[in-house]
Amino acid sequence: MNDSPDNTTIDLRSDTVTLPTEAMYERIRSAPLGDDGLDGDPTAQELERFTASLLGKAAGLYTPSATMANLLAILAQVPRQDTILLGAASHIYTAERGAATFTGAFYQPLPDADGALDLHALAAALASTKGNLKPALVCVETSHNNEGGAVASLAHMQAVHRAAHAAGVNVHLDGARLFNAALALGRPAADLCAQADTVSVCLSKGLSAPMGAVLVGPEETIRRARLLRKLIGASQRQVGIAAAAGLEALDSMIGRLAEDHDNARLLGQDLAAIPGLRIRQPQTNIVQVDVSGTGMDASQWEAAMRQRRVLVRPWGPSLLRCVTHRHITAEAVRGAVAAFAAVAA
Amino acid sequence: MNDSPDNTTIDLRSDTVTLPTEAMYERIRSAPLGDDGLDGDPTAQELERFTASLLGKAAGLYTPSATMANLLAILAQVPRQDTILLGAASHIYTAERGAATFTGAFYQPLPDADGALDLHALAAALASTKGNLKPALVCVETSHNNEGGAVASLAHMQAVHRAAHAAGVNVHLDGARLFNAALALGRPAADLCAQADTVSVCLSKGLSAPMGAVLVGPEETIRRARLLRKLIGASQRQVGIAAAAGLEALDSMIGRLAEDHDNARLLGQDLAAIPGLRIRQPQTNIVQVDVSGTGMDASQWEAAMRQRRVLVRPWGPSLLRCVTHRHITAEAVRGAVAAFAAVAA
Amino acid sequence: MNDSPDNTTIDLRSDTVTLPTEAMYERIRSAPLGDDGLDGDPTAQELERFTASLLGKAAGLYTPSATMANLLAILAQVPRQDTILLGAASHIYTAERGAATFTGAFYQPLPDADGALDLHALAAALASTKGNLKPALVCVETSHNNEGGAVASLAHMQAVHRAAHAAGVNVHLDGARLFNAALALGRPAADLCAQADTVSVCLSKGLSAPMGAVLVGPEETIRRARLLRKLIGASQRQVGIAAAAGLEALDSMIGRLAEDHDNARLLGQDLAAIPGLRIRQPQTNIVQVDVSGTGMDASQWEAAMRQRRVLVRPWGPSLLRCVTHRHITAEAVRGAVAAFAAVAA
Amino acid sequence: MNDSPDNTTIDLRSDTVTLPTEAMYERIRSAPLGDDGLDGDPTAQELERFTASLLGKAAGLYTPSATMANLLAILAQVPRQDTILLGAASHIYTAERGAATFTGAFYQPLPDADGALDLHALAAALASTKGNLKPALVCVETSHNNEGGAVASLAHMQAVHRAAHAAGVNVHLDGARLFNAALALGRPAADLCAQADTVSVCLSKGLSAPMGAVLVGPEETIRRARLLRKLIGASQRQVGIAAAAGLEALDSMIGRLAEDHDNARLLGQDLAAIPGLRIRQPQTNIVQVDVSGTGMDASQWEAAMRQRRVLVRPWGPSLLRCVTHRHITAEAVRGAVAAFAAVAA
Repeated sequence: MNDSPDNTTIDLRSDTVTLPTEAMYERIRSAPLGDDGLDGDPTAQELERFTASLLGKAAGLYTPSATMANLLAILAQVPRQDTILLGAASHIYTAERGAATFTGAFYQPLPDADGALDLHALAAALASTKGNLKPALVCVETSHNNEGGAVASLAHMQAVHRAAHAAGVNVHLDGARLFNAALALGRPAADLCAQADTVSVCLSKGLSAPMGAVLVGPEETIRRARLLRKLIGASQRQVGIAAAAGLEALDSMIGRLAEDHDNARLLGQDLAAIPGLRIRQPQTNIVQVDVSGTGMDASQWEAAMRQRRVLVRPWGPSLLRCVTHRHITAEAVRGAVAAFAAVAA
Repeated sequence: MNDSPDNTTIDLRSDTVTLPTEAMYERIRSAPLGDDGLDGDPTAQELERFTASLLGKAAGLYTPSATMANLLAILAQVPRQDTILLGAASHIYTAERGAATFTGAFYQPLPDADGALDLHALAAALASTKGNLKPALVCVETSHNNEGGAVASLAHMQAVHRAAHAAGVNVHLDGARLFNAALALGRPAADLCAQADTVSVCLSKGLSAPMGAVLVGPEETIRRARLLRKLIGASQRQVGIAAAAGLEALDSMIGRLAEDHDNARLLGQDLAAIPGLRIRQPQTNIVQVDVSGTGMDASQWEAAMRQRRVLVRPWGPSLLRCVTHRHITAEAVRGAVAAFAAVAA
Repeated sequence: MNDSPDNTTIDLRSDTVTLPTEAMYERIRSAPLGDDGLDGDPTAQELERFTASLLGKAAGLYTPSATMANLLAILAQVPRQDTILLGAASHIYTAERGAATFTGAFYQPLPDADGALDLHALAAALASTKGNLKPALVCVETSHNNEGGAVASLAHMQAVHRAAHAAGVNVHLDGARLFNAALALGRPAADLCAQADTVSVCLSKGLSAPMGAVLVGPEETIRRARLLRKLIGASQRQVGIAAAAGLEALDSMIGRLAEDHDNARLLGQDLAAIPGLRIRQPQTNIVQVDVSGTGMDASQWEAAMRQRRVLVRPWGPSLLRCVTHRHITAEAVRGAVAAFAAVAA
Repeated sequence: MNDSPDNTTIDLRSDTVTLPTEAMYERIRSAPLGDDGLDGDPTAQELERFTASLLGKAAGLYTPSATMANLLAILAQVPRQDTILLGAASHIYTAERGAATFTGAFYQPLPDADGALDLHALAAALASTKGNLKPALVCVETSHNNEGGAVASLAHMQAVHRAAHAAGVNVHLDGARLFNAALALGRPAADLCAQADTVSVCLSKGLSAPMGAVLVGPEETIRRARLLRKLIGASQRQVGIAAAAGLEALDSMIGRLAEDHDNARLLGQDLAAIPGLRIRQPQTNIVQVDVSGTGMDASQWEAAMRQRRVLVRPWGPSLLRCVTHRHITAEAVRGAVAAFAAVAA
């Protein structure tokens, strides 16, 4: 029943609205459980092992959210009074800055047009000890949420990784939408992860698991992150309930992301034909729509679209974000385009 | 299948090992879900409302764990550079001190024999500004984990509450095993909660939900705690999956705690008859066994009992903790007693 | 003897190199002292009262440094998990970011070309709760160190103050070189301070006191800052030793800053005539010299000038900073210009 | 003129009330100065070298206060989310707990009767990871302020040091009154310091410098502490002004502490003869007077003594602390005893 949401509404706000599949419910029902605070939960352990192996890392850790996975990656790798270098438009910097206030580290933003860190700025920052602090971690993000789902090239990721390691600094990859990026590049996700020391992947966006994320990386870093997860109150007992859905998501949902990319491309193309709209053509499953040429601002658009039962998300004064996902069919795309056209008219 | 664990082993280590019931799985399957980061998850909202109402508070917040609920209660009520007064043997002080390191507050321990704060020490601490810090929160715990599940009297809780409020200081009740305490006192849980501003309750101990806790309190405090939950990465998307089991736990599992208390009493009585064992007679579902008279220490006991497929938990050099719960029947109690007797012999 | 430094070297690196005057030593010798941790130090108290009165504020607090004054202003006014809005080029953001790591607050940089906060960006930031954090303090700086000693207009300061207060947010003025700014504007320093809730002033830059700063503001904020100064270990016992020099600095050194401005203007004009150098003409006592047109970078310039016994400070890959102060006479300016010309040739 | 305070009052509240000597003023006047933020201040550097050498350590760091020296020692040696083990009555735990709130570390108190850590409790704490945190530093204090200036034996200090190092944990010695302890033991201060990795010494207590302390330890730890001092805003420019008095204090004031000990012994003996007073006989320069047998509490005593122009300090509900120092002559001791006798009568 939850498998398909209210089907008279087209919800393009985020791929976080996706509901669990029937297969996930079955997996939840049959998953072996244990006390993750005592002997360990076997399903969570399986998810951790499977994700680590899929991404080419030694160990994994289940977390309640991708924000928590990113926070633990930082706490495990960055001493107090050091600097984290990251994109000024990255999710960690813009949306997870509350987490920063718990770290005692300084978050230094670098330019990251199109989701790629400016390599000159990165080199300068790695070499500097601005404010007497030294860099201890570089964070990258792909696909890049605020940059319309943009995907940095593998060559770019290699360049960042090389520069960081040459400076003795680790790289953390915020892979909230890692599999979208891998798909866009036509590479296994592990190839992207090879350019980072730790990687967080979200299970509850396009992959449709109800909740959770996994942090992967070296044994010792993950051991430290596991301890920190306990300290901060994010360890859960029979967490296999959630991990089971995550395992199912990794098993059956990665393949279907291609559909979301196709639908995003379709949406981008059709919206581009509507006068007044300027479209950032999608590389993955996110379409940014600039409405500044329409005489209405983003919140007016949001309200007008909502009346037509199409939900979009203001992403700036004159920017809307539309995200395709499991509940957005090609037909829903056409419905959304029709609503855009009607409002624009 | 998860409904009953490996039934050749008697696991007395903790009530956290309890597995979800069949009814919980059904509730999980049918619960309406939403995105708790966008419109809210209706099942989590129902759990929050229901728990708040049950405990006589205005609002509630679902959290991944009781440790997180306690941490958010503290962050929401205690400014940086203030003092938290709490029992030296309390769980927050002894087991959740890692969380303390994220708060910028100072945790000042007070004597708490038998799980009741020393009222003279409390009065002195409330009046002092030791180290130039002022008290901002008093934390109490009932039933009291480290004090063998002891339950402070309602009169004691009233005295603490009155003293704190007279000093302009809030009270937080760590109610990880709140319903065990209420049962022991023969009072509705809300009567205990009336002596605190905020209360955390754990869903995954005796209540058998797989995970999660709820923090309840005034609207404004909970609003602040909800924000902090987001900041720290403990918000989850379709969290109704977990909340559904919690709702079922509150509906159907509170009543059966009496059985656990009965079994604990039985266990305590029978163990007391074994030469060499000194028993702290249980007020709730925890039995502490002092093995110092047996010539074996706690870890030797743990190993010897494990060979007999009875799991107990070292709780000090010569102390074992045994906890009764849903998977411990009267027959299991007899099995455990037999194993104790055999090892002692 | 300390009154004039090694006079064969022209030290333009910073006005922090200034030595105490003979009058300061006399004042140190005769100042009444007390224990600032018990009854208070009368000289520190006089300095605090005098500075507060001079700047039109209710109360003052002596601190070991301007960085500490800024840190205490922030700790006293900004709760954990809130945002501080400040110029991306401001000293607090660029050079005092280590202090930020002790606050649990998030420092959000705003564009501040020429030392003036971008008012549109400020308005947007005050209205936003980016990352779910709310703004709690705006920091401004005048004169502006990294912007070549630029001085924002009083109208600009009023606009910032009005915008902040309309949003219920306080303003802190980093007045490390406040009296230089007041001089440039031809206004009493108190007029500038009227546009801020708290103000820090440094005693050891152009004013030549050996050490120390004063934070001024409302009674309650300063009371809180005084407590925090104690907590963090920055309270000092017979601190009148240092405060006496500060009092003398305020009495006798503000008036002579005009000389430094004259010399800076002279330096700027003469350097502008040297081919290859691009000069940011000074508004106060700082001259920025862009050497990118000379074929040598800033560190090469620094070394070459040092050989000619003129000390300048690299302020970027091809930028030098020259600061005039009490030990830089008009003759020293001519010597410095000659050295620049020789190196450029 | 400051060299002797108001000589009609006998101020026994603390040795922190001591005023600078004439020789200190002369040393201040003639000390070479520099910018401690640029090339370094030569007098501060001399103080740092001299103190390190005197105490047998590789490097030293001037700080505004002993509290700051302790804080920097902790920040330099203790990662976030680790535990500090220290005496429950130690100054760092009781009076400097505000500093703790800036560290992200957990301060675990151990019993420390008579100023000596309970070695069994220490061993247990070093072996435990209570709350999942591991111990990272042991702090000791000698002479021990709250324990009436008690001095642990060298054998005890060795035992603590050995236990800590066997567990891979450093020892920090809070030596606010280190030279009093060394005098009581009849050993060079360096012998005590050999039992610790880092040591803080206060210059402004019995040694009579107006302000400041020095932290000594290994090169790398001090380098890190120096950086942290800068970050936190405790670096000062021409700090030689203060350091000069500190150098003079170390040169000329250590020797005369014997006088303070003699006077404390005299005071203790004479007070013991007054009916109703119970005296903790001094090992150094602190005399604790228990007035519970007099029918007046500590604050009544404080007021009554003040009327007789003798200042003492309440140190608990029925405890007074009297401290001898440079301004307390044998005659002043007799005056104080007379006042005690008069009030007691």
